[in-house]
Amino acid sequence: MIWIAVDAMGGDTAPGLVVDGALAAARHLDLGVVLVGPVSRLEAQVERHAIGIEASKVRFVEAGAVIDMVESPSAALRRKPNASIKVAADLVARGEAAALFSAGHTGATVMAAHGSFGMIAGVDRPALAATIPTKGGPAILLDVGASVECRPAHLLQFAVMGSVYARVALGMDEPRVGLLSIGEEATKGNDLTREAHRLLTGGTAVNFIGNIEARDVYSGDADVIVCDGFTGNVALKISEGLVETIESLLREELSSTITMRVGSLLTQRAMRHFKRRVDYSEYGGAPLLGVAGITIVGHGRSSAKAVRNAVAMAYRFASGQFIQRVEREIAVVAVPHQ
Amino acid sequence: MIWIAVDAMGGDTAPGLVVDGALAAARHLDLGVVLVGPVSRLEAQVERHAIGIEASKVRFVEAGAVIDMVESPSAALRRKPNASIKVAADLVARGEAAALFSAGHTGATVMAAHGSFGMIAGVDRPALAATIPTKGGPAILLDVGASVECRPAHLLQFAVMGSVYARVALGMDEPRVGLLSIGEEATKGNDLTREAHRLLTGGTAVNFIGNIEARDVYSGDADVIVCDGFTGNVALKISEGLVETIESLLREELSSTITMRVGSLLTQRAMRHFKRRVDYSEYGGAPLLGVAGITIVGHGRSSAKAVRNAVAMAYRFASGQFIQRVEREIAVVAVPHQ
Repeated sequence: MIWIAVDAMGGDTAPGLVVDGALAAARHLDLGVVLVGPVSRLEAQVERHAIGIEASKVRFVEAGAVIDMVESPSAALRRKPNASIKVAADLVARGEAAALFSAGHTGATVMAAHGSFGMIAGVDRPALAATIPTKGGPAILLDVGASVECRPAHLLQFAVMGSVYARVALGMDEPRVGLLSIGEEATKGNDLTREAHRLLTGGTAVNFIGNIEARDVYSGDADVIVCDGFTGNVALKISEGLVETIESLLREELSSTITMRVGSLLTQRAMRHFKRRVDYSEYGGAPLLGVAGITIVGHGRSSAKAVRNAVAMAYRFASGQFIQRVEREIAVVAVPHQ
Repeated sequence: MIWIAVDAMGGDTAPGLVVDGALAAARHLDLGVVLVGPVSRLEAQVERHAIGIEASKVRFVEAGAVIDMVESPSAALRRKPNASIKVAADLVARGEAAALFSAGHTGATVMAAHGSFGMIAGVDRPALAATIPTKGGPAILLDVGASVECRPAHLLQFAVMGSVYARVALGMDEPRVGLLSIGEEATKGNDLTREAHRLLTGGTAVNFIGNIEARDVYSGDADVIVCDGFTGNVALKISEGLVETIESLLREELSSTITMRVGSLLTQRAMRHFKRRVDYSEYGGAPLLGVAGITIVGHGRSSAKAVRNAVAMAYRFASGQFIQRVEREIAVVAVPHQ
């Protein structure tokens, strides 16, 4: 059986919804979950949901500390060697679980995974890959915050890893890779994107279709969009904020008159449908690509459904030999360190 | 009388809507417009709208060439010394007009303005300042594309210029300045934002409130948001693309059933109201801050109304002595070049 190590204390909704979601995944798929945290508290949480889950699919591992959202990750990991995220990562490193899931502090998860697994040979920096909705279906945006300073070669590595991910997770045959920049021409952009454009054009490792302007990210022209972690985080987070603002302004517009209120009910239904298409919980989490162990990062406000889908993603990655596939493909583009 | 030099051939809607908008501004405000382009063609365009505009408020200056949207700006400006944008900028440089407006090639406008006006003493790089809607009213985002590679001192200069702009254009007393980054803490972000945070905290030239996460750009927490031109362009353009995508997905949702179609009509009305709040044409254009002459850049697809409002903005800047105000305030933070 494939075991998934779950940081049961990570995130705003832990341990309640994290445990619920993990058990839901174990119930429906051929996987077991290792719940990492204060065991007595986690056992109590599991007992409440005992119906329908085989005891043989749940294990517990003790971890007494939790890393808080506001802590500096490096200092916190040093100070708390028994933090749930660290204990969970070490289980994977020792082969006692096949993959790691956490909805806790993203920076701490990146550092713990990097510390416990190391990097895949040929990859210099990790990348967090978000799934975003477009007019043409889901696309992958990476990096959205794991590697804030990037060199051009890192973006080439992100392109290879993102392509493997799109094939494994979204079932795409030959994902179209775009480089996020501020003009379509190869000469547009900043120093980083101009040089990355040259590297991506020069190789054959990915199906590179050129620069993608931010305006076209949601058009569905590219399946995989690469950028440095600062730019990707800004692009993702400004989109989240804008959707919320549009929703609240629309609600305001639609409640201002009686006639509008009729429209409001119907629009709320439409907006719900729409939000389902853009809902992160459908995908559950963002894989941290590049570290030599399967790591899925959940949203800090993960619902039980999001956790279930993220654990299912970890399972698909493990059974699909994701790390080995990235290793094989990255070997084609990897150049020795200078 | 204050004269505004209008690049009558710049933009997708030129000369038709550009001339219309310029005349509308001249009709309603105490300003004259210098229309720059092929004079006989422009005269014909003006004659069609002759009712209600005094001949003494319109002048024509001949310019035989136009810079195309796909041309490289530096090469095009070298090859076409009689390009309308260049001729218009030179009019301002010679004092024959008080400000420049163009809806043409942004890169060419930035280069022409920089070439003809030079920079304000103490400012190293120009910044394009976009007005964006937030829950709390309009805010200023800069730079959105004029200066793609920035050093920390440039962001400090952008903060000063953005504050003056918010006071002049939006009537704000003490605009709150935020630094766009990927975490609220001073230690979060990339090398550029961490050092810029230090500079902004150290001085008293602006009312600095700290880092603003991309998620909060549309919340209205900050009145002026500074970032490098690559990041700002991505933030602005991804927002434009997302609004279009939401609109088209909502329309799709709302036409899928008969009941929904009733909602659709009402929602279309609400969406129109909403879009008016986010409509760039309300503000007309984005000023190019930092060059030593007033320059307003219009959207490539400017409506007549947008041109009218942009020309009115140029007039307010000229009558409000905008350049002199920036010069005075920037002198406080300016450090000698090393």
